[in-house]
Amino acid sequence: MYKVKVFVTLRESVLDPQGSAVKGSLHRLNYNEVKDVRIGKYMELTIDKSVADLNRTVREVCEKLLANTVIEDYRYEVEEVVAQ
Amino acid sequence: MYKVKVFVTLRESVLDPQGSAVKGSLHRLNYNEVKDVRIGKYMELTIDKSVADLNRTVREVCEKLLANTVIEDYRYEVEEVVAQ
Repeated sequence: MYKVKVFVTLRESVLDPQGSAVKGSLHRLNYNEVKDVRIGKYMELTIDKSVADLNRTVREVCEKLLANTVIEDYRYEVEEVVAQ
Repeated sequence: MYKVKVFVTLRESVLDPQGSAVKGSLHRLNYNEVKDVRIGKYMELTIDKSVADLNRTVREVCEKLLANTVIEDYRYEVEEVVAQ
């Protein structure tokens, strides 16, 4: 099995109202040292060893379903999981 | 500035209906090699150098606002950002 960790983040140029809301809340809680917050998504996929081309599969999955590449970037890390 | 990357994930024992829905969609798209999907949150905080105790601040922020520690775990990574 492969464990693939996918990180999807809004592109730098895209406004992040959810992040702004969290920053506002943190300031109201007196965490004024927090200067910026950006919110993204984190996904862990467990993929079978039988996959033909792991990198191609992960890229396709990200681009078709997990990320909206118009406004979001994604990156991923692969870990090999030893049989449990 | 510090850039703190926070990962919030559901605890292993907690059902993840959002992950199940994504897995179902992937199977409908014929990605049957994907055996499991877990969805989490990813947040990037930019924190000022003036912070008194970075680790304490990040832990407090996570436990008060970013993660629901009853059902979620969190971990974080700190990067130092050189003046831009």
